[in-house]
Amino acid sequence: MIEKLLPSILRHENISRIADGGVYITDRRVLPFSHEEVFCPDYHAAARAVKEMVTQGGGPLEAALNTVLLTSRTDPSALDDAAAELSSARPTNTTMKRELESVMRRYRAGEDMEEIIPSVFRRYDALYDRISDIGAGLIEDGMGILTTCFPEHTFMLSMAKAMKNGKKVTVYVPETRPYLQGARLTEPCLRELGIECYLITDGMGAHFMREGRIQLYMTAADLVLRDRTVVNKTGTLANAVAAAYYSVPYYAFSLGFGTERNADEIKIEYRDGESVKHLGSERTAANEAAALYPCFDIIDPSLVAGIIMDGGIF
Amino acid sequence: MIEKLLPSILRHENISRIADGGVYITDRRVLPFSHEEVFCPDYHAAARAVKEMVTQGGGPLEAALNTVLLTSRTDPSALDDAAAELSSARPTNTTMKRELESVMRRYRAGEDMEEIIPSVFRRYDALYDRISDIGAGLIEDGMGILTTCFPEHTFMLSMAKAMKNGKKVTVYVPETRPYLQGARLTEPCLRELGIECYLITDGMGAHFMREGRIQLYMTAADLVLRDRTVVNKTGTLANAVAAAYYSVPYYAFSLGFGTERNADEIKIEYRDGESVKHLGSERTAANEAAALYPCFDIIDPSLVAGIIMDGGIF
Repeated sequence: MIEKLLPSILRHENISRIADGGVYITDRRVLPFSHEEVFCPDYHAAARAVKEMVTQGGGPLEAALNTVLLTSRTDPSALDDAAAELSSARPTNTTMKRELESVMRRYRAGEDMEEIIPSVFRRYDALYDRISDIGAGLIEDGMGILTTCFPEHTFMLSMAKAMKNGKKVTVYVPETRPYLQGARLTEPCLRELGIECYLITDGMGAHFMREGRIQLYMTAADLVLRDRTVVNKTGTLANAVAAAYYSVPYYAFSLGFGTERNADEIKIEYRDGESVKHLGSERTAANEAAALYPCFDIIDPSLVAGIIMDGGIF
Repeated sequence: MIEKLLPSILRHENISRIADGGVYITDRRVLPFSHEEVFCPDYHAAARAVKEMVTQGGGPLEAALNTVLLTSRTDPSALDDAAAELSSARPTNTTMKRELESVMRRYRAGEDMEEIIPSVFRRYDALYDRISDIGAGLIEDGMGILTTCFPEHTFMLSMAKAMKNGKKVTVYVPETRPYLQGARLTEPCLRELGIECYLITDGMGAHFMREGRIQLYMTAADLVLRDRTVVNKTGTLANAVAAAYYSVPYYAFSLGFGTERNADEIKIEYRDGESVKHLGSERTAANEAAALYPCFDIIDPSLVAGIIMDGGIF
């Protein structure tokens, strides 16, 4: 059902698939310039691919589920090791870890992996469907919408459903340096859906709010804390602050709350500053420059109009 | 006097110089990876170089002054044409236009061009010196300072003088997409001056303010309107809004007020969106993507703690 509304790179088979005795994972690092898949003959290779950021967002979970299913067919005695190695390949991806634990509990309780894995995929599809119904309900005809990074299924389905409901929107897409998820993933998805969208640099969000072109700011959330603090890709906060200043409501999509009570329990990961000094293989700064790359922003609850989740807006 | 405090690319001879019967203009587009000069045998070539963004900020004025001096030596009958062609090469550079008009008035009134041009250079040097005394006075030991784009003489001299006064600061430098003035010009200048500085992406300013790392936000101003509205490079506004939210004072350096009363009299130039889809020759987005590049931000007076000008802080 939702498959028909999704842009192609978010359809299951284009995220990860089982074939030729292994797991293929679409390499999001080279999209949209090249469509390549990394072939993983076993769970070690899949864990390595996840660690090397071949896929991101909801991609690691789908790749891990397929890898567990494959392992159950080829080497069931290695299932515990496979789940552990996949989980530790991306320590900040708590959703993947939780789902793999749940899958293994069900397996040990006697369920067939051929039933478990498809049921997890179906549950997420249904979740995306329900959450995007709520997201689409916030959208009015003629709105300008700002996002940040690559907000995947919930946001894309909200846009697709709004369009289906006859609401015309314009989406402003910050390129999202250093990895350019906005330029490389978000913009092509929206264009494929037939939604008017403009690529902008990461410093331009406030500019278009001041011009009155933006009525809604919507992003995904890497994590939502129990006090409604949103943790999401660097750049999300700057736009959330500008949204508050220009009275543009900010909504974050989330599949559920994390276990942390508030921002005091969060430590932001700093990645290698070299990313900030490069664009792909091209240098953007002097070799000698020092650069900082805090990977996530913490957006305080006072800046958030609502968290769009299964069951409603919190 | 100030020459000793300036980073090398801001010294006169490294911006533009007369030699070999023409004017050399340092090509800021390839800094810091390559130090190249564009040789302009006449005012047509110099106007073309200015139009093609070989230099920027205060650079076009210095190149134009040298070109007028050269023309007065080689072809004085062409001086009016030269001044007009140079002015129209960068219509938004009102300072250059105004100075060239003033130079031509003095020349027609009988002054020697060999006296006029050096006097203009001396006047700017003195102005930078006085303004940066005021800027340096705002800086306290241990401050974290955010900037945007390439704030040239007034900011760099303020930092150099603060350091000379024993104040240790850390400067956070957004890369400033699409042209990367922050990465390519600002960061190397600060590093040359021995000032601790970190390159960040354009979406990270708010992040570091939230972390309490930034106590001051300082930029240049392309234009200051009579109601204290600041017009400056895209990205300046987002950081100014975040600065207001996190109670970080924002100061803009300016050489003088423009003639416009308020933002209603300003039309923001949109440049070719292709810049946003490229980094140098490298593509960063799909060919089919639509992109927007509003070249300047308008920062409302309520966001500005003060304009640092000759004579004080307004």
